[in-house]
Amino acid sequence: VPPIRPELGVSIFSRMAALAVRTGAVNLGQGFPDGGGPAAMLARAQREIAAGNNQYAPAVGVRSLREAVAEQRADRYGTGFDPDTEVVVTAGATEAITAAVLAFCRPGDEVVVFEPYYDSYAAATVMAGATRRAVPLRYTEGEFRFDPDELTAAFSDRTRVLIMNTPHNPTGKVFTAEELATIAELCRRHDVLIVSDEVYEYLTYDGVRHVPVATSAPERTLSVSGLGKTFSATGWRVGWACGPAELVAAVTSVKQYASFTAATPFQLAAVTALRECMDWVEELRRSLTVRRDLLSGALREAGIEVYPTSGSYFLQADARSFGTDDGMALCLDLPERAGVVAVPSVAFFDHPEAGRHLVRLAFCKDEATLIEGAKRLVGYR
Amino acid sequence: VPPIRPELGVSIFSRMAALAVRTGAVNLGQGFPDGGGPAAMLARAQREIAAGNNQYAPAVGVRSLREAVAEQRADRYGTGFDPDTEVVVTAGATEAITAAVLAFCRPGDEVVVFEPYYDSYAAATVMAGATRRAVPLRYTEGEFRFDPDELTAAFSDRTRVLIMNTPHNPTGKVFTAEELATIAELCRRHDVLIVSDEVYEYLTYDGVRHVPVATSAPERTLSVSGLGKTFSATGWRVGWACGPAELVAAVTSVKQYASFTAATPFQLAAVTALRECMDWVEELRRSLTVRRDLLSGALREAGIEVYPTSGSYFLQADARSFGTDDGMALCLDLPERAGVVAVPSVAFFDHPEAGRHLVRLAFCKDEATLIEGAKRLVGYR
Ligand SMILES: CSCCC(=O)C(=O)O
Ligand SMILES: CSCCC(=O)C(=O)O
Repeated sequence: VPPIRPELGVSIFSRMAALAVRTGAVNLGQGFPDGGGPAAMLARAQREIAAGNNQYAPAVGVRSLREAVAEQRADRYGTGFDPDTEVVVTAGATEAITAAVLAFCRPGDEVVVFEPYYDSYAAATVMAGATRRAVPLRYTEGEFRFDPDELTAAFSDRTRVLIMNTPHNPTGKVFTAEELATIAELCRRHDVLIVSDEVYEYLTYDGVRHVPVATSAPERTLSVSGLGKTFSATGWRVGWACGPAELVAAVTSVKQYASFTAATPFQLAAVTALRECMDWVEELRRSLTVRRDLLSGALREAGIEVYPTSGSYFLQADARSFGTDDGMALCLDLPERAGVVAVPSVAFFDHPEAGRHLVRLAFCKDEATLIEGAKRLVGYR
Repeated sequence: VPPIRPELGVSIFSRMAALAVRTGAVNLGQGFPDGGGPAAMLARAQREIAAGNNQYAPAVGVRSLREAVAEQRADRYGTGFDPDTEVVVTAGATEAITAAVLAFCRPGDEVVVFEPYYDSYAAATVMAGATRRAVPLRYTEGEFRFDPDELTAAFSDRTRVLIMNTPHNPTGKVFTAEELATIAELCRRHDVLIVSDEVYEYLTYDGVRHVPVATSAPERTLSVSGLGKTFSATGWRVGWACGPAELVAAVTSVKQYASFTAATPFQLAAVTALRECMDWVEELRRSLTVRRDLLSGALREAGIEVYPTSGSYFLQADARSFGTDDGMALCLDLPERAGVVAVPSVAFFDHPEAGRHLVRLAFCKDEATLIEGAKRLVGYR
C-alpha cells in the first residue's frame, strides 16, 4: 500500500505539541489557554451529562444554541440570522471551514487566502482539489497589511472562495472596516464566496474592535466562530457558522457526514456560555492584555524584536534577534536547547521567503509560564 | 450563488428526526438508545470537566484511550495494535469512515459497498469524487447474503476501497468468517483497502459472535468502531480506527483538519467505559435481545413480516404487509397517520428496486415505547 495523502502530513501543531511533551519544555506553541472556562458553563455541561442528554443532537445543532448564536450576532454586530436556516453548529470552527471549502469548491477551482494562514485552510483546499492563491500580509508602518493590487491580481475566473481570518492568527492583525470593504468589493465583482474565520472575535486589545466581514458582504459570507477561544474550552469542539441559508445548507450537507454533530452536552453548555458568561469573557480579554504585555515587554527589554498584536492570543518574534533568519530551525532547536516550544510561522506561508524569520508565541498561558518562557528565550539568546 | 452539493442533501436520519419532532410520533427511526450509559463512564466525564481537562487533546486522541482500544482489540479478537501508530481517535465512527475514504481515494477511483449501506458511505465516495459499485445483500434462505460472483464482478482495475459493515445496519446481518474470507481474498487479489464499520460489534444476539474482517486481512483493513452504540453515548462523538500505521496516518492527516480531535473529557470517559464497564455492555446486549423479541413478536403476531436480525439494533419489516411495496411512501405516511417514525431502507440502496419494500425499525428504545409503536403499527395496518 503506497503512502496516501502525504501532502497533508502531520500538522505543525501536532509536531510541536509532541516536541513539547517529549522535552517537557515550556509550551508557547499550540494555542490553548492554561486557565479554565466560566464556572456556569462547566457546571451546565456536567448537569446535562447527569441528566442524560448524551445522545445525538440534530445535525445542524441544538436549537437553543442556534438561537443563542443568532442573538449574539444580532446584539453585537447588528447582523441577524435565522436560527433555523442560517446557523449550523460544527465540531469546532475547523470543521466548519473544511466543510465549507469541500462544499463550495470543485477540483480546479481557486481559493484566495492571506498568508500567513491557519494551516487547515491549505489542507482544505488540497482535499477539495482546489488551487490556492496566497496574498501576503506584509509588515509596513507598524502593521501587517495586504497590497490591494496584489489582492486584485489574485482573483481569476476560477476563483470560487476567499478564506480570511480576523482577528488574525498568527499576526494578531485585526482587519479594518476599510480593508473589509476592499475585500467585499472584489468578492462581489468576481462572485466569490467568503469564508471568514472569526474565532478570536472577542480577543482584541487596546480598544481595537473586531468588525465581521459579514457587515460588508452579508449575501456571500459564511461567518465562522466557536466556543473554544472565547470561553477557554478548545477541547470541547463546539463551533458554528452563520450565513445565507444556501451556504449553511451546503456546509451542513458535508459536516453531517464528518462529525455528524457536535457533542450534545457541550452544545447545551455553550448556550449558558453565550447567555450568561460574557462578563467572564471581558475579564479574559483584560487578563490577556496584561499577559501579552508581560511577554512582549520581557522579550523587547532583552532586545528581541516583537511585532505588535491587537487581536488573537499570539504574537510574533523575529528569529533574527536570535542570530538566524531561519525560524523553522530556531523552533526545532528551542525545545531541547532553551526548553521552550514556539511555532515557526513559515508553516503558514506558500511563499516561505516572506515568513522565514517569524516565530509565533502564544500568550494565553499562565503568567508564571510566560515569565519562565521569556527568561529561557532571553537566556538562549 | 447556485445551490452547492445538492447531491449530498439532507440525510434520511435528519429528515425522519425532523418529522418525529414535528408530529410527536413514537420514534423508531434514528438509531440512538433511550437508556443512558454506564454510571462510572458518566461520572468520569463529569470529573474530567470539573478537573479542567477541557483543552485540545492530541489530534490522534489521548494516549490512555488509544491504549485501552488496542488492549480491547487484543483481548477480544487477538488482533493487537500499537497504540502509538495503529490507533486514531475520531469524532465518531462516521468521521473515521469519511476521513478514510477522502484519504484513500482519488477522483475516478471506485469503491465497492454492500447495499443496503449506511448513508455516509455514499456521501463520502461522492466527496472523494469516487464511483460506487454496490453489491446487493439479498434475502435468501432466512438470511441476507451476497452472491460471491456479483462481488467478484464489482471489482475492477480502479477499485481502491471496499467499505463494509458488520454487524450490519439495517439488515442485522453478522458476516460469517467464511464470507469475510471471500471478501479478504478478493481485496488482496485486487490490492484493495477495506474500511470496516463495526460500531455494533458488541450488539449480537442468539449466540452469534462478531468476527472482525481484520482477522482475515490485517494488512489492508481499517477497523472502525466507537463509544456511541456500545455504551449508549451517541451524542459524545467518540470513535476510533485501528489498522496498519500508514492507513492510520492517512486517516489522521485528514481528520486533523475536520474535527481536529474528539472532545477531551469524553475521550477520557471512554477509557473508563472500556476498562470498567464491559459487564454493563453484556447487560445491554441481554436487554436488547428482549426488546428485539418484543417488537418483532408483536408485529409478527399481527401478521406483519419481520426479517430476522442477529446484530445491530435494527430490524426490517416488509411494507407489503401494510398493503404497499413502497416503503418510502409508507414511512412518509406513518408519522401523521400512525404516529410512528420508521426509516425507509430504500435510502440505503443504489438500486432502489432491491429495497423498495423494506422499512427499518430501531429496537433500542424503552419497552413501553416499543409496545406503543408496535400497537400503532398494527392498528394502522
Ligand atoms: C487545532 S491545534 C491549533 C490551535 C490553534 O488555534 C493555534 O495554535 O493556532
Ligand atoms: C448519525 S444519525 C444515524 C444513526 C444511526 O446509526 C442509524 O440510525 O443508522
